[in-house]
This record gives sequence, C-alpha cells and structure tokens, in this order.
Amino acid sequence: MNIALAQINPTVGDLGGNADLIVRRAEEARRRGAELAVFPELCLTGYPPQDLLEQPAFVEATQAALRRVARAVPPGMGVVVGAPVPNETGTGKHAFNAAVLLENGERVAAVHKRLLPTYDVFDEHRYFEPAREQQVIEWRGLRLGLHICEDMWSARERAAHRLYDEDPLGSLAAQDPDLFINISASPFSAGKHGERDRLVEEICRRHERPFLLCNTVGANTEIVFDGDSRVHRASGEPVCCAESFAEDLLVWDPETGDRTCYVRRDPTPDRHAALTLGIRDYVEKTGLFEKALVGLSGGIDSAVTCALAAEALGAERVVGVTMPSKYSSEGSVTDSEKLAGNLGIELREIAIKPAVRAFDEMLAEAFAGTEEGVAEENIQARARGLTLMALSNKFGHLLLSTGNKSEMAVGYSTLYGDMSGGLAVLSDVLKTDVYALARFINEEAGRAVIPQNTIEKPPSAELAAGQRDADSLPPYDTLDEILRRYIEEKKELAQIVRETGLARDLVHGILRKVDRTEYKRRQAPPGLRVSEKAFGMGRRLPIVMRWDREAVRAETAPAG
Amino acid sequence: MNIALAQINPTVGDLGGNADLIVRRAEEARRRGAELAVFPELCLTGYPPQDLLEQPAFVEATQAALRRVARAVPPGMGVVVGAPVPNETGTGKHAFNAAVLLENGERVAAVHKRLLPTYDVFDEHRYFEPAREQQVIEWRGLRLGLHICEDMWSARERAAHRLYDEDPLGSLAAQDPDLFINISASPFSAGKHGERDRLVEEICRRHERPFLLCNTVGANTEIVFDGDSRVHRASGEPVCCAESFAEDLLVWDPETGDRTCYVRRDPTPDRHAALTLGIRDYVEKTGLFEKALVGLSGGIDSAVTCALAAEALGAERVVGVTMPSKYSSEGSVTDSEKLAGNLGIELREIAIKPAVRAFDEMLAEAFAGTEEGVAEENIQARARGLTLMALSNKFGHLLLSTGNKSEMAVGYSTLYGDMSGGLAVLSDVLKTDVYALARFINEEAGRAVIPQNTIEKPPSAELAAGQRDADSLPPYDTLDEILRRYIEEKKELAQIVRETGLARDLVHGILRKVDRTEYKRRQAPPGLRVSEKAFGMGRRLPIVMRWDREAVRAETAPAG
Repeated sequence: MNIALAQINPTVGDLGGNADLIVRRAEEARRRGAELAVFPELCLTGYPPQDLLEQPAFVEATQAALRRVARAVPPGMGVVVGAPVPNETGTGKHAFNAAVLLENGERVAAVHKRLLPTYDVFDEHRYFEPAREQQVIEWRGLRLGLHICEDMWSARERAAHRLYDEDPLGSLAAQDPDLFINISASPFSAGKHGERDRLVEEICRRHERPFLLCNTVGANTEIVFDGDSRVHRASGEPVCCAESFAEDLLVWDPETGDRTCYVRRDPTPDRHAALTLGIRDYVEKTGLFEKALVGLSGGIDSAVTCALAAEALGAERVVGVTMPSKYSSEGSVTDSEKLAGNLGIELREIAIKPAVRAFDEMLAEAFAGTEEGVAEENIQARARGLTLMALSNKFGHLLLSTGNKSEMAVGYSTLYGDMSGGLAVLSDVLKTDVYALARFINEEAGRAVIPQNTIEKPPSAELAAGQRDADSLPPYDTLDEILRRYIEEKKELAQIVRETGLARDLVHGILRKVDRTEYKRRQAPPGLRVSEKAFGMGRRLPIVMRWDREAVRAETAPAG
Repeated sequence: MNIALAQINPTVGDLGGNADLIVRRAEEARRRGAELAVFPELCLTGYPPQDLLEQPAFVEATQAALRRVARAVPPGMGVVVGAPVPNETGTGKHAFNAAVLLENGERVAAVHKRLLPTYDVFDEHRYFEPAREQQVIEWRGLRLGLHICEDMWSARERAAHRLYDEDPLGSLAAQDPDLFINISASPFSAGKHGERDRLVEEICRRHERPFLLCNTVGANTEIVFDGDSRVHRASGEPVCCAESFAEDLLVWDPETGDRTCYVRRDPTPDRHAALTLGIRDYVEKTGLFEKALVGLSGGIDSAVTCALAAEALGAERVVGVTMPSKYSSEGSVTDSEKLAGNLGIELREIAIKPAVRAFDEMLAEAFAGTEEGVAEENIQARARGLTLMALSNKFGHLLLSTGNKSEMAVGYSTLYGDMSGGLAVLSDVLKTDVYALARFINEEAGRAVIPQNTIEKPPSAELAAGQRDADSLPPYDTLDEILRRYIEEKKELAQIVRETGLARDLVHGILRKVDRTEYKRRQAPPGLRVSEKAFGMGRRLPIVMRWDREAVRAETAPAG
C-alpha cells in the first residue's frame, strides 16, 4: 500500500482554509497512487492554537471542519488528520490531541497523544488530557503504530533522569505493528534535523519496523516548523525525504526498492531559510501588510534583516528608512544606500534632527543641570522608532525590528525605540551568527549584497559621540560564548567559567544583566525562534525578583 | 496545641530575604505561644518563580536556604515551609512543590502537591512532578492533613465535567486526620474570598475536621495575592481570620472558645487594595525606583492611576505630567492641576507642540497627499510616551501606564504611546469599574480627590478635533457587558447576544476586535491581575491567526 505524507503549512485558526488545504493534498496523494494520506499534528487548527482551545466554539467548529474533511476527501481513501477532539470522559481537560483516521466520510479510528510536552514553547498540559494507553490501529490488513509527536521522543531518553515514565513506542511495539506513523508539530531549531535522524534510526533498529514521520511546516507567530518529514525503512535508513522549510508531498511505495536519501543541513543556511519563511508567513498569514519596513542604520543587524525581508517578500515589498542624526557616521547613510541599491528596494531618508531638537526644547527645564546620558541616547532611538511607526501606521507596512539575540539578552536596546515593530527577525540569532548570515547571503548571491563596510566596521549604536558597542559590552565572540551557554545550554556560572576560562566577575556580570533586563524583553515584539531556547513564549522569567546567585553563594559560604 | 498561620509577603527569588522573613515570623509565633508555625506555598522562593525553577543553581540554593531556616527557627518549634524540593526518583520533572515540616534543625516530613494547576496564570506542570498519593503526617500526637493549594480545590467540583480524577482531601480524610492544613499561593480576584469561604465551610462540614488555610500575600509582577488566611472550626464557621492584602500572623488556640469571625469584602474596595499593593510591591521589591511617574490627561484613567500611586507610595513619591496639544481640552490641564493639588503631588507641564511640529516636518514629504488619520493621532500619543520615558530614564522613575481593560481589550490605545510604562495599573479593570474606583476614592477621602469634572466629562483620547471615545466604541456600559462575558466569563457570541439582548453584529464586531488586537497586548507592560481572567501571562492567544467564528458559521450552515 502506498502511503503519502502531506507536509502542509496550515494557518492557526483558519479552519476553513486548513480543511481545504487538507482536501486538496489528499486529492493529489490519491492521484499519485496513495491509499492513505497522513497529515501533521493539529494541522486542522494550526499549531499552536493556544487559548483558542479554551473556547468551546472553537473546538466545536473544529469538529465541524473535521466532518467536512471526512466528506470531501476522495472516497475509498484513508486520511489521518491531526485535530483536537473533545474529551467526553467527564474528567480532565476538555480535549485530546488526536490523530483521526477518516475514510468514506466517517471517522474510523482515533488515537490520542499520551506525552504532553509542557516546557519551553509547549503548554500541552494546559489544554489536553493525556491518553492512558496506545492501541495499534488495524486498517486494510495493516497494523498501524500511529502516534503523535512527543510520544516518540521518550524513546531517546538514556539519561539517569528521564522526563517520562511512559514509553508509548514500546507499548505500540509490543502490539506487533507493521509500521510506525508519527504525526508531528516539531519546531525547527539549529541542529534538530540531525537529532530527528538519529532518533528515528534508533527506533527503527530497536523495533525493526519502518517509520513514517509527517511534520508540519511554516511559521506561526514565533514558532518556525521546518517540515523534515521522512520515511525510514525497518533497518533505519531514510528512504524518502521531504523538502525543508516548504510544503511537500511524499508518496512512499514499500514495494519498490527505495534509494537511501540524505539531506544535508547546516545551521547557517537553515537559520536563513527559517527566518525568510518566518517573515513570509507572518505577512501572508496575517494578510494585513503589503510591505515590510526596516530602519537601516548602516549596521549589520538592520542590513541582514532587510536582506532577509527582500528574499522573503520580494524587493518591491520592502522599504528601508535611513534616519541619520548628528552622531551618525557617514556610513550610516552611504552603507544603507548601497544596501538598498544592491537589494533593489525603496529607500527613504528622514533625518531625526528636528525631533531631537524639539525634545531638547521640551525637556530643557526638566533636564536642566543634569548630565547627558542614557535618557538623551534613548530619545534618538525613540525618535527613530516613532518615525518608523508613523510610516507603518500611515501606509499599513509591517515594521520589522532588527535587534539581535546578544543585544536583547543584555538589554543593549531601547524599549519603544529600536525595539519597535511587529516582528523581531533576529531576536533569536546571536551577533556572531548574524555575521555568519551576512556572509552566507553574500556567498549565495555571489556578490557583496550586504556591503563589505557594514560587515567590517566595529558595531556601534551611534547614539553618542564616538560610541562603540565594545565600550559597554565584551567583544561579541566572548559575549556569545557566555550567552549561548547560559541561555541555550542552560549552564550555570561555575560551568561557564570552567568551559570558557573567562573571569568569574565578567561572566557573573553578564548573567546578571540577562536576568535584570527581562522587563525589556517582556515588551519586545514576538521573535522568530531558531534555537533551542529563544526569548519570548518559551522563556518565562519574573520581572519583579531578586534572585542573585552570587549573593546566595556569599551567604551560604562557610564563615572564616 | 497552638498553631500559627504566618501570612507573609515574600519576594520572588530573594532566598536570603525570604528565609529571614520566615525565621522572624516563626520567632514571633513562638513568643505568642505557638508550637507550630505554618507558612504559605513556595514562600521560600516567592510565587511564581517561573523558569528560575529550571536553573539547577536556583533549586540547589533553595535547598541551602531551607537548611538555613531549619537551623535558625526556635528549637522545639515545628515550622511548615512551602518550597520546591528536588525530585530524586529518576523520572519526571526535576522538582516537587512541597510543604516541608522542619523541627530542631531537621526536615522531619514533607508532602508534595498532587494537583498541579496548569491553566490561566499557572504553569505547574511545566515545573513540577505531581505527588502520587497523600499521607497524613503524625507529629506530637496530632494527625496533620497537610496539603497544598490546588489539592483542596478539587473538592469543589460538582459539575458533570471534573478537572481532576483525584481527590486529595478525600484520601487524607480517609486517614483520619485531626485537622486539615492547606498552604496556598492563591491569587486574588474580585469575589475569590467568598469562594474560599464556601469551599472551606463545605470541606469542614463534609469531613468534620477543622481547616487551617495559610495563603501568601503581596504582588509579584502581575499576580496579586490577598492573603485571606483563616481557621474554620470542624462545623465550618471561620473562627480566626487574617488581614486582607497585608502581612499577618494568626495564632489559633483550639482549646479556647473562639468567636466566629466574619470579614466583609466587596469588589471595589478589594480592587482598590489590590492595586495599591500591586504598585507598592512593584516599587519595593524591584528596589529600583524612588518615584512613580504618571502622564495626566485630565481623564478618569490617569487620575485614578495617579491617586492609587499616591496612596501606595505617598504623595511625595509621585510625579504627574500634563502634556497638552492643540486638541487638548482646557480641562486636560486644569483638571490635572486640580488632581495634583488634591493629592499633593508634583506636577510638570510639557506641551508636545514642538515634537508634533517636528514630526510633521520630518514626515511632510512621505505623508504628502495623504489624509490625516490614525498615524497623526499616534504621533501625539507617542510624543507623550517618549516624553514620559525620557523623564523616567533621566530620573529613574517608574512610569505607570494608565490604560484600562476595556481599551486594552479592543485596542483603543497606542503601542509605544500611552501603552508605555513598567506597570499597567488598570489593565485588568474595566472602564465602568474605573469609575467605581474613582467614586470609592472620593468617598473614602470624604472629598472630591478625583475632580468631579474628570468623572463627569465624556471620555475622549483628545487626539483629534472634537474626538469622543463614543465615536469609535459603544458606550462603556454596553462594551463592558460584552467584554466581561467574553473575556472573564468565557462566554460565546450566541450566549452573549442572548444574555444582553444586543445586536449580533455589534457583539461579533467587539469580539473580533478583541481577537485581532492581540499584537498590541503582547507588547503591553505587565498589568495587575484583579479578575478571573486578565490580559498577560494568563491569557495566551496567537497573533498570527485567522480564527473567525462567523466565517465558520457561514461555511457550515446548511445550504439554502
């Protein structure tokens, strides 16, 4: 029996549109000879539907949409759809996260998700009741080991401490399935593809069954899904591999001698693909913005953001704005002009001098006798933010904010200034990785789309005379070594000091800056998640708090 | 045996400070004749510690602090402390949410929380492994039915659909306890006090045992705890009642014939107390701000925010700023002056004309040929926001934003404009309830602290000539009837239409506005939660989404 894996890109909440998409892809699968078409986890609602799941009208409408799909798919064909289904047991959360098998207008079987990820960006215990057991589904003489996303991930656990007691794949394996089918909404992060490879191969080898994985693709607000659907034969090798970061339809024929497929993936091109998809889906799925707007400083972050936007949307849908002040270097304008020319985008120049002068005048009395400092710097950043928002409001453009993860981590950014925008493109990309993206963009283009001067000049916010980032922060390669370990790898002070050989005070100072600038990040635009741990919905820290690891250490150290 | 309930106000993450507070209160309990002192849920870390619980160093430091408390409390005394303890079973989340009984420098017993709330502002499945069972603790001849917060709330469930299968109080009751002790971090919302009354009375009557409830008090970023600790005798009456919204130490002597106590609580005074506590704790617990700053428009929201700040911090710690424009009414300045005079706070006047003129000039070319509209209105709101943030940055004041829940719900507010600030005081108070607060403030003062004109004039954003809120929105009493049902009571379109008799299109339009303005609220400052459902951490909706209840209805309606 030929089985299709339909790697689709649904929109959260668009039940009608998602249902249509499923039906169209099922028809295509049928045309291509498949008897069964498998769709991703919660593809009917899009992932994550978040608190829409708490609205009874939404869950009801989902059931209606599911019935519509059942009626509309080609007769005689089986379709597995991921959708929430109501929990009618009388106890627990109001829904299950289900894989529903539809055939000839009817639901013929359903399995519920057992392991409900409740960490990072996942809140599944908030919405779903877990399944108590797994059942193999018998269908047309096949025993299907159907299960959902996280249910396969417990198989990887080898550590002394396991997250889950249950082993859903083990339970299924004990029921002698002919093959495993996993439907997923498994987000992208750099390196995740390789993890999936290893995990699925290991499962195949352990249970000696083919494994079909159908993952969703596309970006929904913060989360980017890379697809990466695949079929592995019982011995472990992948024999059928989907496109990354794009819709795809795989049709697997178990009778033919498949070739082993191998998808090469690397962090920088992956991030590049994830970010362009993230921008495109934000714009397409909201359907509200004709163009994107980027404030260009002549620096690397705004240049890379702008280049990504131009790739995502087309150059004609991107507007750059350069907003020089008296502290701006000459390159601030000329490098922006060069970039805009290279990309072929529209560029506006609006000097912020009138605004800065106006606020100087308005605040002269209040500020009398004080020294120039952060307040004055922020006025400039906010005058730029205000200018961009005015253009955004006037013309209905989506403002993209340009701050990178390193800056966001230590609060080297101005709230309501450069942090303004609807989407923070680089807020999960460390500064050193922004440079890697710039080089990649230029390599792919075969020319310096991002001006060489932008790549080479020392980073500066240009909010005061002669200012350099390096005056306030350690060099970015040092800073990123600390941040990657603290934020993404969740390592502690002592371990970071040990691994990097950096001074304890320096490392502690950075960790403290991260902890203390949560208030800024709380008000940041949503950012595209491309690492294992991004700021935003997956990292939840208190603002009002006094945790200080060194204070505790001093206090509990033995006296004398 | 006399038992003390120590209703304390810990700070999140301040392990040293919280430990000191516990020790001091235990000593006081001892002096007042108690043999056992009971402290609230997670009082050692403060609630909610959020992702600090994912930092191994934090959980380790908590254990060290717990040992310090054990050594420091008066010898011979028992102390029950709420704290996370590591899960050493080898499976599951890394910690339990525990109540630890300390005595003579040792941990003598601990119980773990069984029901882990994972809804609204609660994320306990993210952090904790649930207990598998309950055990009564035998201590000094008493059988203690010790348990934690949510473990008692399943007792209330009478509905056809129960959230939990388990019944922790039933398990404890079956073990013949002498009394129940519940330690809680149970947040305030208007009406919650009465719910606790009814629940505890019902538990007492069902199981015929006294019930001691020790709840935490204070505000931690968004969540406000009202305390409301109490002892009920076996027959159900409360006999010992703590202060609301303040620290307190109750000492209960089971031998004396206690008098029934009755605490009268009403929504408006409760909200008033919750909001002043919220402002005070934000300022005191961060320890970063000498003063609070409020932009005064002459309208009701900024006046109430300012009055609350003056009560919370003292008039000398509040600065008002009036920022008239050409669209401002005369009252915008005069009512602000009157308010500032009534409160005895400092008032600054900074006209925004220079900034508006500057942006007009800067944007003249870009805006040429367009009609004046939202972009121009927002420039004014943002010029004010920028002015306030400049003052905040220069002088280290905390900017309080003033938007109410009705405005925030429908997006009648300017991102980076009037939404700027560190704390959104009224963002969980509907406009009609803001008026109730104003009247309450004046009644309590015995004079019109909030100027009568501010209360009586028609609400207006004053961003365009002759503008009134009523031009864009239904009257606030109508709007609030819709919003309360949709947001707080989670009712659906059809039910709201049925209950209010309002036109379906009107109600649908408002619901849609709420759904579509999530992007603004995502970047709002944290707000003080005083209802069952506030915007912020407890309400998580996707930004990029296309859920439209009426579109689905049209599509699934029978043809013809």
